[in-house]
Amino acid sequence: MIVVLKKNITASETEQLVQKLKESGCKFQLFGDGEPIIRICTQQPLLSKDFFLSQPGVQDVLRITPPYELARKEPDKPDTVIRVGDLEIEPAHFLMIAGPCAVESEEQIFGIAKQLSRLGVRFLRGGAFKPRTSPYAFQGLEEEGLRLIRKAADQFQMKIVTEAVSSAHIPLVAEYADMIQIGTRNMQNYQLLKSAGKQKKPVLLKRGMNATIDEFLLAAEYILQAGNSQVILCERGIRTFEKATRNTLDISAVPLIQQLSHLPIIVDPSHASGKRSLILPLSRAAIAAGADGLLIEVHNQAELAKSDGPQSIDFQAFEELLASMNELAPFLGKRIL
Amino acid sequence: MIVVLKKNITASETEQLVQKLKESGCKFQLFGDGEPIIRICTQQPLLSKDFFLSQPGVQDVLRITPPYELARKEPDKPDTVIRVGDLEIEPAHFLMIAGPCAVESEEQIFGIAKQLSRLGVRFLRGGAFKPRTSPYAFQGLEEEGLRLIRKAADQFQMKIVTEAVSSAHIPLVAEYADMIQIGTRNMQNYQLLKSAGKQKKPVLLKRGMNATIDEFLLAAEYILQAGNSQVILCERGIRTFEKATRNTLDISAVPLIQQLSHLPIIVDPSHASGKRSLILPLSRAAIAAGADGLLIEVHNQAELAKSDGPQSIDFQAFEELLASMNELAPFLGKRIL
Amino acid sequence: MIVVLKKNITASETEQLVQKLKESGCKFQLFGDGEPIIRICTQQPLLSKDFFLSQPGVQDVLRITPPYELARKEPDKPDTVIRVGDLEIEPAHFLMIAGPCAVESEEQIFGIAKQLSRLGVRFLRGGAFKPRTSPYAFQGLEEEGLRLIRKAADQFQMKIVTEAVSSAHIPLVAEYADMIQIGTRNMQNYQLLKSAGKQKKPVLLKRGMNATIDEFLLAAEYILQAGNSQVILCERGIRTFEKATRNTLDISAVPLIQQLSHLPIIVDPSHASGKRSLILPLSRAAIAAGADGLLIEVHNQAELAKSDGPQSIDFQAFEELLASMNELAPFLGKRIL
Amino acid sequence: MIVVLKKNITASETEQLVQKLKESGCKFQLFGDGEPIIRICTQQPLLSKDFFLSQPGVQDVLRITPPYELARKEPDKPDTVIRVGDLEIEPAHFLMIAGPCAVESEEQIFGIAKQLSRLGVRFLRGGAFKPRTSPYAFQGLEEEGLRLIRKAADQFQMKIVTEAVSSAHIPLVAEYADMIQIGTRNMQNYQLLKSAGKQKKPVLLKRGMNATIDEFLLAAEYILQAGNSQVILCERGIRTFEKATRNTLDISAVPLIQQLSHLPIIVDPSHASGKRSLILPLSRAAIAAGADGLLIEVHNQAELAKSDGPQSIDFQAFEELLASMNELAPFLGKRIL
Repeated sequence: MIVVLKKNITASETEQLVQKLKESGCKFQLFGDGEPIIRICTQQPLLSKDFFLSQPGVQDVLRITPPYELARKEPDKPDTVIRVGDLEIEPAHFLMIAGPCAVESEEQIFGIAKQLSRLGVRFLRGGAFKPRTSPYAFQGLEEEGLRLIRKAADQFQMKIVTEAVSSAHIPLVAEYADMIQIGTRNMQNYQLLKSAGKQKKPVLLKRGMNATIDEFLLAAEYILQAGNSQVILCERGIRTFEKATRNTLDISAVPLIQQLSHLPIIVDPSHASGKRSLILPLSRAAIAAGADGLLIEVHNQAELAKSDGPQSIDFQAFEELLASMNELAPFLGKRIL
Repeated sequence: MIVVLKKNITASETEQLVQKLKESGCKFQLFGDGEPIIRICTQQPLLSKDFFLSQPGVQDVLRITPPYELARKEPDKPDTVIRVGDLEIEPAHFLMIAGPCAVESEEQIFGIAKQLSRLGVRFLRGGAFKPRTSPYAFQGLEEEGLRLIRKAADQFQMKIVTEAVSSAHIPLVAEYADMIQIGTRNMQNYQLLKSAGKQKKPVLLKRGMNATIDEFLLAAEYILQAGNSQVILCERGIRTFEKATRNTLDISAVPLIQQLSHLPIIVDPSHASGKRSLILPLSRAAIAAGADGLLIEVHNQAELAKSDGPQSIDFQAFEELLASMNELAPFLGKRIL
Repeated sequence: MIVVLKKNITASETEQLVQKLKESGCKFQLFGDGEPIIRICTQQPLLSKDFFLSQPGVQDVLRITPPYELARKEPDKPDTVIRVGDLEIEPAHFLMIAGPCAVESEEQIFGIAKQLSRLGVRFLRGGAFKPRTSPYAFQGLEEEGLRLIRKAADQFQMKIVTEAVSSAHIPLVAEYADMIQIGTRNMQNYQLLKSAGKQKKPVLLKRGMNATIDEFLLAAEYILQAGNSQVILCERGIRTFEKATRNTLDISAVPLIQQLSHLPIIVDPSHASGKRSLILPLSRAAIAAGADGLLIEVHNQAELAKSDGPQSIDFQAFEELLASMNELAPFLGKRIL
Repeated sequence: MIVVLKKNITASETEQLVQKLKESGCKFQLFGDGEPIIRICTQQPLLSKDFFLSQPGVQDVLRITPPYELARKEPDKPDTVIRVGDLEIEPAHFLMIAGPCAVESEEQIFGIAKQLSRLGVRFLRGGAFKPRTSPYAFQGLEEEGLRLIRKAADQFQMKIVTEAVSSAHIPLVAEYADMIQIGTRNMQNYQLLKSAGKQKKPVLLKRGMNATIDEFLLAAEYILQAGNSQVILCERGIRTFEKATRNTLDISAVPLIQQLSHLPIIVDPSHASGKRSLILPLSRAAIAAGADGLLIEVHNQAELAKSDGPQSIDFQAFEELLASMNELAPFLGKRIL
């Protein structure tokens, strides 16, 4: 961290600041006479940017090192491998997770699981707890939904990805799920992050729709720091002025996060676009940008879906998408999992 | 809701849609021949906008009535009065809530409470559970913090506003607090909203930094629908491309929400701007725009604050602000509480 | 400017960078050994931030001084006084500019000018060249519009504010107008800014709907640098995710710009909100935040307006607004002009 | 267009509205009794959305058909072919345009043209008029720049793409250039659009950094309507809250625009990201999303570039990018031009 002091800082202000730095135990260097600069030499500074901005005589502060430590890519450290039961998701894999927005009935989830497993998909998504903008919208089948998706997954040898919306639900969801999803609205629900970090199942963390990349990696840091190293990140679109799509897929986040972090990052084109007709081109863009996988909403009867109908694709469209991923993957150094 | 059908919708698609509408129990009217329009006549439609957008033959959907029912202003219904113990916050009041970002120590919170009560402030804010972007930042004193602020408030006959960050904490916070704050990062933490709705203490609901006004009022609807009618809304800035301020205070939200809802709306200029030098002009703007109150970060020693130092003001600045509010209030039909 | 070099910068990279700095004539200081920092000591650096970011071995760059020189507030320099013919707009004034979006006919502009002058308004707005999103929308009466508004203003002893949309039109507009408006879509039309800077009439520069405050002041710098010191800034709302209002009025920009620059800043609540019912509360917010004036769309028959009808207010609403400004002005150290 | 009237609209308000509709010559239908709906049947309504929103008794308005006519995709009309001298850019082509941000010297532009033509690139970009945020930044060599890039292009049998920043420059730029670029800051400079529409050279229109897709296509409509059918669109990133990249590449805009319009759309990953390390993955994402080409900043010595150094790539990186495009193109039904 670089702290730039004001031209007209007084000697006593400088002295007090130096005194506080010494008391904090921070290692630092002070440069220059007339207009001094302080460099904080510790990686995780004991004093925050806000602390310095509150001090009299401070002009500006520049953070040099990223604020996350555990999520950060290190030159000699390999990228994270995620273990889901007997499966290992390696950096060369391209992960396909598919399924309905919500588990709606036994018939629905079994029908979808059967079709997807037939196409070779190993990861089944489906929500039992649904965070919905309106209290009048379908809120999910809760534990019954968990039970149904577990049963369907078991029958077709699939793994489950399903969402937890409260730290109180983490034990329950962890009992049924193979991977716990934390949704966009909960990316800064720190209690939930901490609880997810204290159990063993891998966590699929979706980017907050208004979260910067730094904040996204700091949210992952909460989980890592609590003891769980198994985190998959998911870019799912950010909120911008453009309303022609439900969100704006921040495709640049994929390669950028891969340069900043060792965690895998997948893409959810369904929520990013909100439009069925964009799922295929955005999935292609995702794999081409280097993404580590996709999370796709597939429904047997989208016009009957209780949520997210307009962005769900049917099996035929999904099969075409899968074929396209298989074609492109080799050129990106990936193989479909 | 108006559902516009495609020019080339087939007779069988129209028929199937009409059939589904009948089955749902929706009241509706179908207009026009060649290019039909459907009007859904129920206030809270049983079928969602997404449902219609998923149907074959549907071109577009326009919602006419707002999606929230309980939060909505009704012509003949008076605006909500909030009861905090023996105090009633009426529409003609201008509520002053002040205090530090976080409760840091007994000395700090007693010192601040003393000064504020001397200035006539009746509502003391101060966080015991702090949602922080970084896991390395100060996370609050938790129950000890609640205990300290309660003690300080009791000594100086003040009411407490303090944040709950998890539905599991609601009973604990409700035990100590006079008003429970739900913060910007938790505005769509629906478990927390439901829990806050199931207890009796008034709730101060802050707008999500990326929430539209509709989503903000739907979050309030969650609380109202769960049984608690005592909700105060708080505009605290939204996230935009402009980085000269921490957030962008959406001042228009104040009069707009007053036209849409019967709930009081106050302004938090501290988080909106992140800059001490803007607190006074933004507070003036807030009262002038018709806001029902202010939430202000005041600290005895901002340069020592464990969080939000750059945006905290000292007692002298706060006294000046209070004087200005007292001058302007009569012209806006308000009196300071 | 502070240039932070990478930990692993090589001696030869440092040497080459120092060499380039010397050749550029930049004054600079180099601090530290292992991880050096460079401070550029010139106010307007000869080398840009981009230049440094392109150099091998550079980690990051922090600009300390604002990039605009002439628009910048200086401790001992008074704020700018704008001269419009015989009128002087001083810092203690609160400027009222009102009129229709577009000049539509002789009858319309004379009718409006008459009513406004009767209420004491001295500045009449009205566009003759209209920048419209659609080529099918009304594009303005062009020179005939200029002629009509000039005639109306002369008859009622008013000053004219009207827009130029192309550098080629500047001489024509300058001939008729007392103040030349540059609209939000043209804030970065640098040819237009330069042309406006080379003539003598004051310029009303509206903030680009996507412009940061720095970019806004840099646009003003173009005009100042071309030789025209008479610039009034106008905050008119920025584009954000919130669609309940046409734009989001960035009320914080008002006091912030007053801290950064000596140029006056006024507010346009009509374009900011796009909603008639918000004009009064936002005008109050503007004066309370310290704005130096207002730009208001007033129309004799808003339901017949060829543009911006939904945000135009009628004379009665405008009279009420004016009364409110007169009440509040003394408490903000302002008097209405 | 659908106009929804208020529940409590009076008979006389309805009658007046109907009267105005009749006078305007609009074809329309009026449905329903108690709460009527009006459908405007003309494609390009003679009365605007704003007109209706200004009328008493109007609740809301929904536009059904897109506001652009000429830019709109029609079921039976083939996509536009662009003719650049003897070259035809067809929908199956993938256009590669490369070169420096600005023409800086004869040596620079000849050196770059030589290398690019050796790699098979046929379109050379390079600005002679540079719209720069700061008046202190390099503004381009102007006509001398045009002369130099023309000479370089002729020597290496390349086509030139270069920017015009003012309608007054259009004739000059059209004399030298093979394709005229209109930059992001000028996307709503309507005088410039009209001038570009009145000459014969193809126009490369970049999306405004704050423009919606509708506004982008309406800007193209200005050119088409003025008589020039040869428009290539370019997505170059939009401005959002995320600052880790210079802009946010809106990759969804590519397939969406292809569904809405018959005009080709290419991608500029250099301005979108502002980061050299992201150019390759974003270029891959662009072709995979179905883009019709790329616009890439390539510089022989990025560390000496007078502008945009941090986002320029060198020849080696460009060659690698080109190889990757050649690999992926067949799977997207494209061949490189």
